[in-house]
Amino acid sequence: MLGPRVWSSVRQGLRRALSSTVGGWASGEGRKVDISGIYPPVTTPFTATAEVDYGKLEENLHKLGTFPFRGVASLAGFVVQGSNGEFPFLTSSERLEVVTRVRQALPRDKLLLAGSGCESTQATVEMTVSMAQVGADAAMVVTPCYYHGRMNSAALIHHYTKVADLSPIPVVLYSVPANTGLDLPVDAVVTLSQHPNIVGIKDSGGDVTRIGLIVHKTRRQDFQVLAGSAGFLLASYAVGAVGGVCALANVLGAQVCQLERLCLTGQWEDAQKLQHRLIEPNTAVTRRFGIPGLKKTMDWFGYYGGPCRAPLRELSADQEEALRLDFTSNGWL
Amino acid sequence: MLGPRVWSSVRQGLRRALSSTVGGWASGEGRKVDISGIYPPVTTPFTATAEVDYGKLEENLHKLGTFPFRGVASLAGFVVQGSNGEFPFLTSSERLEVVTRVRQALPRDKLLLAGSGCESTQATVEMTVSMAQVGADAAMVVTPCYYHGRMNSAALIHHYTKVADLSPIPVVLYSVPANTGLDLPVDAVVTLSQHPNIVGIKDSGGDVTRIGLIVHKTRRQDFQVLAGSAGFLLASYAVGAVGGVCALANVLGAQVCQLERLCLTGQWEDAQKLQHRLIEPNTAVTRRFGIPGLKKTMDWFGYYGGPCRAPLRELSADQEEALRLDFTSNGWL
Amino acid sequence: MLGPRVWSSVRQGLRRALSSTVGGWASGEGRKVDISGIYPPVTTPFTATAEVDYGKLEENLHKLGTFPFRGVASLAGFVVQGSNGEFPFLTSSERLEVVTRVRQALPRDKLLLAGSGCESTQATVEMTVSMAQVGADAAMVVTPCYYHGRMNSAALIHHYTKVADLSPIPVVLYSVPANTGLDLPVDAVVTLSQHPNIVGIKDSGGDVTRIGLIVHKTRRQDFQVLAGSAGFLLASYAVGAVGGVCALANVLGAQVCQLERLCLTGQWEDAQKLQHRLIEPNTAVTRRFGIPGLKKTMDWFGYYGGPCRAPLRELSADQEEALRLDFTSNGWL
Amino acid sequence: MLGPRVWSSVRQGLRRALSSTVGGWASGEGRKVDISGIYPPVTTPFTATAEVDYGKLEENLHKLGTFPFRGVASLAGFVVQGSNGEFPFLTSSERLEVVTRVRQALPRDKLLLAGSGCESTQATVEMTVSMAQVGADAAMVVTPCYYHGRMNSAALIHHYTKVADLSPIPVVLYSVPANTGLDLPVDAVVTLSQHPNIVGIKDSGGDVTRIGLIVHKTRRQDFQVLAGSAGFLLASYAVGAVGGVCALANVLGAQVCQLERLCLTGQWEDAQKLQHRLIEPNTAVTRRFGIPGLKKTMDWFGYYGGPCRAPLRELSADQEEALRLDFTSNGWL
Repeated sequence: MLGPRVWSSVRQGLRRALSSTVGGWASGEGRKVDISGIYPPVTTPFTATAEVDYGKLEENLHKLGTFPFRGVASLAGFVVQGSNGEFPFLTSSERLEVVTRVRQALPRDKLLLAGSGCESTQATVEMTVSMAQVGADAAMVVTPCYYHGRMNSAALIHHYTKVADLSPIPVVLYSVPANTGLDLPVDAVVTLSQHPNIVGIKDSGGDVTRIGLIVHKTRRQDFQVLAGSAGFLLASYAVGAVGGVCALANVLGAQVCQLERLCLTGQWEDAQKLQHRLIEPNTAVTRRFGIPGLKKTMDWFGYYGGPCRAPLRELSADQEEALRLDFTSNGWL
Repeated sequence: MLGPRVWSSVRQGLRRALSSTVGGWASGEGRKVDISGIYPPVTTPFTATAEVDYGKLEENLHKLGTFPFRGVASLAGFVVQGSNGEFPFLTSSERLEVVTRVRQALPRDKLLLAGSGCESTQATVEMTVSMAQVGADAAMVVTPCYYHGRMNSAALIHHYTKVADLSPIPVVLYSVPANTGLDLPVDAVVTLSQHPNIVGIKDSGGDVTRIGLIVHKTRRQDFQVLAGSAGFLLASYAVGAVGGVCALANVLGAQVCQLERLCLTGQWEDAQKLQHRLIEPNTAVTRRFGIPGLKKTMDWFGYYGGPCRAPLRELSADQEEALRLDFTSNGWL
Repeated sequence: MLGPRVWSSVRQGLRRALSSTVGGWASGEGRKVDISGIYPPVTTPFTATAEVDYGKLEENLHKLGTFPFRGVASLAGFVVQGSNGEFPFLTSSERLEVVTRVRQALPRDKLLLAGSGCESTQATVEMTVSMAQVGADAAMVVTPCYYHGRMNSAALIHHYTKVADLSPIPVVLYSVPANTGLDLPVDAVVTLSQHPNIVGIKDSGGDVTRIGLIVHKTRRQDFQVLAGSAGFLLASYAVGAVGGVCALANVLGAQVCQLERLCLTGQWEDAQKLQHRLIEPNTAVTRRFGIPGLKKTMDWFGYYGGPCRAPLRELSADQEEALRLDFTSNGWL
Repeated sequence: MLGPRVWSSVRQGLRRALSSTVGGWASGEGRKVDISGIYPPVTTPFTATAEVDYGKLEENLHKLGTFPFRGVASLAGFVVQGSNGEFPFLTSSERLEVVTRVRQALPRDKLLLAGSGCESTQATVEMTVSMAQVGADAAMVVTPCYYHGRMNSAALIHHYTKVADLSPIPVVLYSVPANTGLDLPVDAVVTLSQHPNIVGIKDSGGDVTRIGLIVHKTRRQDFQVLAGSAGFLLASYAVGAVGGVCALANVLGAQVCQLERLCLTGQWEDAQKLQHRLIEPNTAVTRRFGIPGLKKTMDWFGYYGGPCRAPLRELSADQEEALRLDFTSNGWL
């Protein structure tokens, strides 16, 4: 974790840089990274008193890491502090400490994509730099959202350009309209794809026409698209995505990796059958029951789910039953 | 065209039937039809004074019918009175006359799917029966929409069951939220898929997770899903759809059929490349510029597009230029 | 009711007029009408077999007409074929016949505002002319909605100008976004307010900032704004509206007229208390339970409510209980 | 500003309290405060390098405080860290320091409502306690929003109850759907109105039916409703609101206070005329051009507006002209 002195000096430097012209200082220029593959967005375990439980975090990672899906197919790495990581509920220190711990627990060949988005450009740059310092391989930067009514292409292009200019690690755009009320416009994505330090986008909107268009319009760049959910993973591969960040991979990681393998090897019929059986469980741990649903399912699958931080609430008994049904009826429990 | 006397007697019979219990009289029971394949939703040509131009309609059909896509791939048939047919602007007589003319112009081996949806259940039944009488092979029934706030699953299940009970021809559900503000709920689709006279759905929403789920949940029925737009046609095939109703097929019919063939023969890489080049032209003639855009493009491609009925307006010069760019930049003009 | 011959000749004339330049022939020029006051939007009674029950319609009107609110406060008239009249479920003949019957049952000093909106401009003009012929004092014209994605200001201005040019009776604009997905833009309203044959707007959106702005921007015209619901009637008067079309006035007509009187005489404290007690009942018979809720309540209050046409459905027992509670808890039952 | 040690001890105590049962410790029980009146939501001035400019903040407050609207009508106080204060762009320290400075600059008889909402319940409690320590009279707590899909009534009631239980100062609910995508449900407001430490709500949604209903349903509590914008201030007073938090009062403070006075003294005709002239300027500095528009206008009216923090952007020349027109056309510039 960064001490206050380091922070202060980091900030001073960044302020100067931030007031310079956009594009002036591209720290990460040229160093592209291959982000293809499947990533579970790691949840943040909490104790009964809502403290981050770093021990449980490491246990979960260990279990995920020793998964039987080595060999034929395996996770490319982990997303830390995505929407499923409850990042808006963590302090800056907690956000960094969680990434630090994940980095320590992770084999070096697994990528660590760290969510570093904040509301202001300045805070996002600071968080991105800090994430790099604690070992993130790339920064996944969600669109600012509180003032989404003013977040047009010009504002978002400026924001991401500044962040990418000043980030020591490659940047992945992150569009998740269900949370932010904002879809990163395709024209902004296309412009940003030309930045040497922006390597791809995680698109959680589920609009496969849009995903295909992004792949098409960025085909001359080395730009990679990750599906933001397992529900449209096959379709995304079909139109040119190279991987996915899938909440469902926290519990059905082997299956999601298997789906990836079937798509990559052109076994579309088997892929389709598997995809079909993953849609309802996936919806259940995302849109339908959210993080409380995902964590409850983790408890069932031998991980530590545990409570969410308030104001997120536990599922009711009825909801829990419906959640379970979405897994059992598809043969996963 | 039906005379007033015929109408009156048809109506009397239907009223009786409509007041009977749902499910009581399934006229079309058991006669399923294979609706797989590509369908252009035919536009309705108008003269300068906004009369239906039946001559131009026949000319367009003739040109579409003699297309070079015989052999390797060809159209399965035509949708008449879909959203692109400006059906809400036609009188009941015009709707029937258009279908009559298309039936006459069409080879018998081409399917004619006729849009017969109206706001009330009764009117929809009457129109469906009449469409059958003038030669439609199946009825495509859009969700009622003016009171969409009250169109829950129960209301829609009741509506479609009545229509399917009384329809002499198979019924295709039609969900087009961009026009109706209403997505036919998946649970309603699943229930309705069990009706012997309901053979499939045209889904224009573009949510491929939903399409996959519908295919999955109706897998034990003989139920067919058509993508409602060329923008997500490949992705829909990938998750189990069997065809598409594609506005773009009015002008790039050969290409859309070629995309179908590539999907069906498992040539996914080529399919992807072709799909990519169709997204922008497709968006241009649908969401972006609507029917005025589609008709303008038809003029360019040797068909008769002509004016729309008011209140739809012609494109401005700027819009026309943007429309053209969406075709030229993808190599189609 | 118009015979087929009359219709045909009416249509021929209109077609010619429609192809002329907008603004060329303003039939109703200069004849403004005072539409201030309270109007119940009359429901259409149906028999058990879903035929229009004209007898019940006349009984309802008679009861409403002999209401104790003569003298101190009284209804300005009736809206026929508004959204509450289930007009999308009626044939053209039924629409005209209902208006004919209401005209006959109504004292001459009560205004009859007839909903004449259709999807196409041409059909709207025809219906408006016919409504005038059967005795409507003004035509209330809902925005076309199926292609709402293309209904920008230019399209709507053109549509309403044509209708107003050709209408023998004054035109009232009608914006009801809950049904149409479309708010008639303020700039279009301001432009249209300058047409000599457009006298006002019924605004059902409930955005009182917008209502105030419309009053302000049309202050130099003789343009009148009616609130489209009793829930924001007081607030609308406060910002300059001159009346309301209120579903609730079908059952609590005296109370709504009393609210009008309190507003007009500046008794704002009493008005506020009364307004407060009307919000929940009003929401119950509009947004919450729709026309089935309104008709059920009419049954309770001594009118004939009866069934709706399908696909609208009766309330469940639970819904009925909740509906009743919204009236009892506010002291109205 | 709180040192790290104080923070740490504050946090420890709060954690314990937070894990206790809801309702167990109501620190602020019984101490209601009168929040009626007009409040400008203070903007946060930044230097050219995006540092908080505390000097300019004090200058602005001084100018606002010596306004000619003493006597006949005057500001009740100031909202600090509302949406217009760019609070999502400030660090916790900056948020507290800004409130500290405003407290010092403010006469004791002016209320200071401090925005203390954060995403997590825990962070919100901590910030609320800190706001109290630096002199806030009440805490205005925005709804958490990132996971708005899960923020149902139960979650929000639990959140606000915890905050109100542990807050040393009265709590004002804050619903601003344009930013949060979330309308605090009326039933939750009604339940929360019974908490002894919750004194009111700032409602920025502009739905006056809802505002009237909240006033009505909380009439047995000592619960106060503030309109969240000047555009519907008159209408809100008409249905029972007791004041407003109005961005426009930062530049037209005298006029907004005059409008309040006209409403409170029953001069509704004059109030209406004034209200009308405020709608366009108000929309311009809120929904249309946001904080950049408000700050630009402040520059024109003799205050320091200055730049926003990124990613908010300055207005273009065209936008600036449109903004100016909204003031000049209504006679304010």
